[in-house]
Amino acid sequence: MLKEVAGGITFPRGFKAAGVKAGIKKNGKEDVALVFSTVEATWAGRFTTNKFPAAPVLVSRAALKNVSGRVVVINAGCANACTGEQGLTDARNTAKQVASLLDIAPEAVVVASTGVIGVPLPMEKLSAGVRQAVAELSEFGGEKASQAIMTTDTFVKTCGYVADIDGVPVRFGGMSKGAGMICPNMATVLALITTDAAVTPDVLQKALTDAVNVSFNRITVDGDMSTNDMLVVLANGMAGNPQIKSLEGPEYEEFASALRAAALNLAKKVARDGEGATKFIEIEVRGAVSEADARKAGMAIANSPLVKTAFFGQDPNWGRILCAAGYSGAELAPEKTTLSIGGVQIVEAGLGAKFDEKDLRSVMSEREIKVVINLGVGTASTTIYTCDMSYEYIKINGEYTT
Amino acid sequence: MLKEVAGGITFPRGFKAAGVKAGIKKNGKEDVALVFSTVEATWAGRFTTNKFPAAPVLVSRAALKNVSGRVVVINAGCANACTGEQGLTDARNTAKQVASLLDIAPEAVVVASTGVIGVPLPMEKLSAGVRQAVAELSEFGGEKASQAIMTTDTFVKTCGYVADIDGVPVRFGGMSKGAGMICPNMATVLALITTDAAVTPDVLQKALTDAVNVSFNRITVDGDMSTNDMLVVLANGMAGNPQIKSLEGPEYEEFASALRAAALNLAKKVARDGEGATKFIEIEVRGAVSEADARKAGMAIANSPLVKTAFFGQDPNWGRILCAAGYSGAELAPEKTTLSIGGVQIVEAGLGAKFDEKDLRSVMSEREIKVVINLGVGTASTTIYTCDMSYEYIKINGEYTT
Repeated sequence: MLKEVAGGITFPRGFKAAGVKAGIKKNGKEDVALVFSTVEATWAGRFTTNKFPAAPVLVSRAALKNVSGRVVVINAGCANACTGEQGLTDARNTAKQVASLLDIAPEAVVVASTGVIGVPLPMEKLSAGVRQAVAELSEFGGEKASQAIMTTDTFVKTCGYVADIDGVPVRFGGMSKGAGMICPNMATVLALITTDAAVTPDVLQKALTDAVNVSFNRITVDGDMSTNDMLVVLANGMAGNPQIKSLEGPEYEEFASALRAAALNLAKKVARDGEGATKFIEIEVRGAVSEADARKAGMAIANSPLVKTAFFGQDPNWGRILCAAGYSGAELAPEKTTLSIGGVQIVEAGLGAKFDEKDLRSVMSEREIKVVINLGVGTASTTIYTCDMSYEYIKINGEYTT
Repeated sequence: MLKEVAGGITFPRGFKAAGVKAGIKKNGKEDVALVFSTVEATWAGRFTTNKFPAAPVLVSRAALKNVSGRVVVINAGCANACTGEQGLTDARNTAKQVASLLDIAPEAVVVASTGVIGVPLPMEKLSAGVRQAVAELSEFGGEKASQAIMTTDTFVKTCGYVADIDGVPVRFGGMSKGAGMICPNMATVLALITTDAAVTPDVLQKALTDAVNVSFNRITVDGDMSTNDMLVVLANGMAGNPQIKSLEGPEYEEFASALRAAALNLAKKVARDGEGATKFIEIEVRGAVSEADARKAGMAIANSPLVKTAFFGQDPNWGRILCAAGYSGAELAPEKTTLSIGGVQIVEAGLGAKFDEKDLRSVMSEREIKVVINLGVGTASTTIYTCDMSYEYIKINGEYTT
């Protein structure tokens, strides 16, 4: 039985963290985060598929070829993307500095960055920040670390779970950031999940891939896939459960479902905190010929500026939702399509249904809205999570300074 | 030599038009347009690929299977989309009414609609409007007809050209509408081009397809492909040029380039009048492995809300442009990519170049901005036309009433 609890990345046993102010963010807040496993941890990751991967993505992808490691160091305020050889050198030097301070191998360090693209890392500031973060590592540092990775986020995104694996209570913690440039394809934004489960690298990678596919790969804020998206999970085995070695059996099921819950929890928080968002929107696509088709239709609806602004305006302009499904490339049968918003049946057999305008207006005024569309051609389904688009989105992104 | 002139759809010989107020638009303005060729005209059309095609799209697609016709009737204020059997009956009845009033075959009538989706046509109002429009048909009715097809458009979109074909002056006229729900894939929005050229149906269709590919298929406002997109061209032969029967020779070249000029002229006006737009942006993609790839990269950049809002904010956030190219799916070489904005070289070899901030700020404050990105992997290129995204876009679409 999976139990959700308060607590973040330092909730699982054997993890320490810190978040410090290095002066990289213009607002002077915490901007360097360090997460450290006191023992070697099995790790796995997923990265952006953007063809301009940031330097830390390239460096960390190489580090994750090893099956285990110890540290994740993250800076906000500068993405270290489109920075060429200098960017790679800076990312590698950061890993080396962390490794040297903690007396571990540089390959046991994952580096991540988020912020403005095309600007070199301010290495002097970062280096001082790293030194301070290592000095401040603590079992109570999770909250500060989660604050340090924020950019345009309006709230800290963390989660905690306890799973029962083979009678042993196994802990999971997570943190993520992201509010704009969000439409992941592999992993997303920056997210880190820690667990004290004992699990083999292969099993961990498989569970992570499955979890990402139904969580971070199912959210979108603006359709923009970042150059820096990265999700890493560290499993250090300190719970003492018999190591999970197989994809069969209740142990794996419990582990995978806890990882999925943590990933979905963090992913939904990213969609909910979409830049300028006033509403959280869940779009369930049913009756598709394949899950890929369901995703296509759901993503087209979720990314349509016309749909997003209609939700912001609380205007039940359902034609825009059908229109987006229609150009998504997904197979559908117009004469069988149905649509409901907040439980109010709007479209039946591709036509406007009879419903009480008042009910619908009341649904559209909610902060959380569920849309269900049935494409009428199959049995596959999926759910996409997104938010509306408001004046504030334009303000944030028209004024975000390079 | 192609010459641009003032004048719209009634500029070519033998075309009459009218635009009347039928009370379909809420603002009480002209909302029914009729365009009539006094003699049988060769025609061709391109339609939306949206899987929820509107009733008039289905009816007109059938009519255009004939190689010639006489009339285009258009209403604004109601899209007649997602209206099922009733919608088809209404569209067919409109064609029948026009045909009966003008004593021609119903198959010689193309119908088009634009406006809100999911609402049935107000047939009584439309029918009265059609009667009045037929009565008012005139060689001077082009302007009124162009006004009648507007929805959220802020200006009337027309064009006129004179081509010299075989020593004969041949006229072209055009009108289009559209400001939102614009990202055509086959044809787009509503557009009509008239010409008094004599041309065979096959040649006309080929010239139209080529023209659309470099004009309406290269614009985007919000990435939303409408259910109603339709472009129709009527060529009535009244110029008296020897009929163009072949795709070879200077006659075809001159004809095709005039048609392309008219289509591009109208398409650019649609992008320029994008909902809430403050800037017109031309994105030239070079160095791609194929034209399709160039289009992918250009469309990703043009549709990125982060890029669009950066232009609105006059913020030279070039990382967002590279980021969009990076997730577009187009092949590219990061280390060879170059980018210029308004002639200022911003990125060389994938890295920020040295440039004068003042020059760039001055470029970003212009009303028209040209972006050139070279992907560094081939020789194919294309140009995409779009606009920025402002508070006004949110206002227009958050308040557009169903």
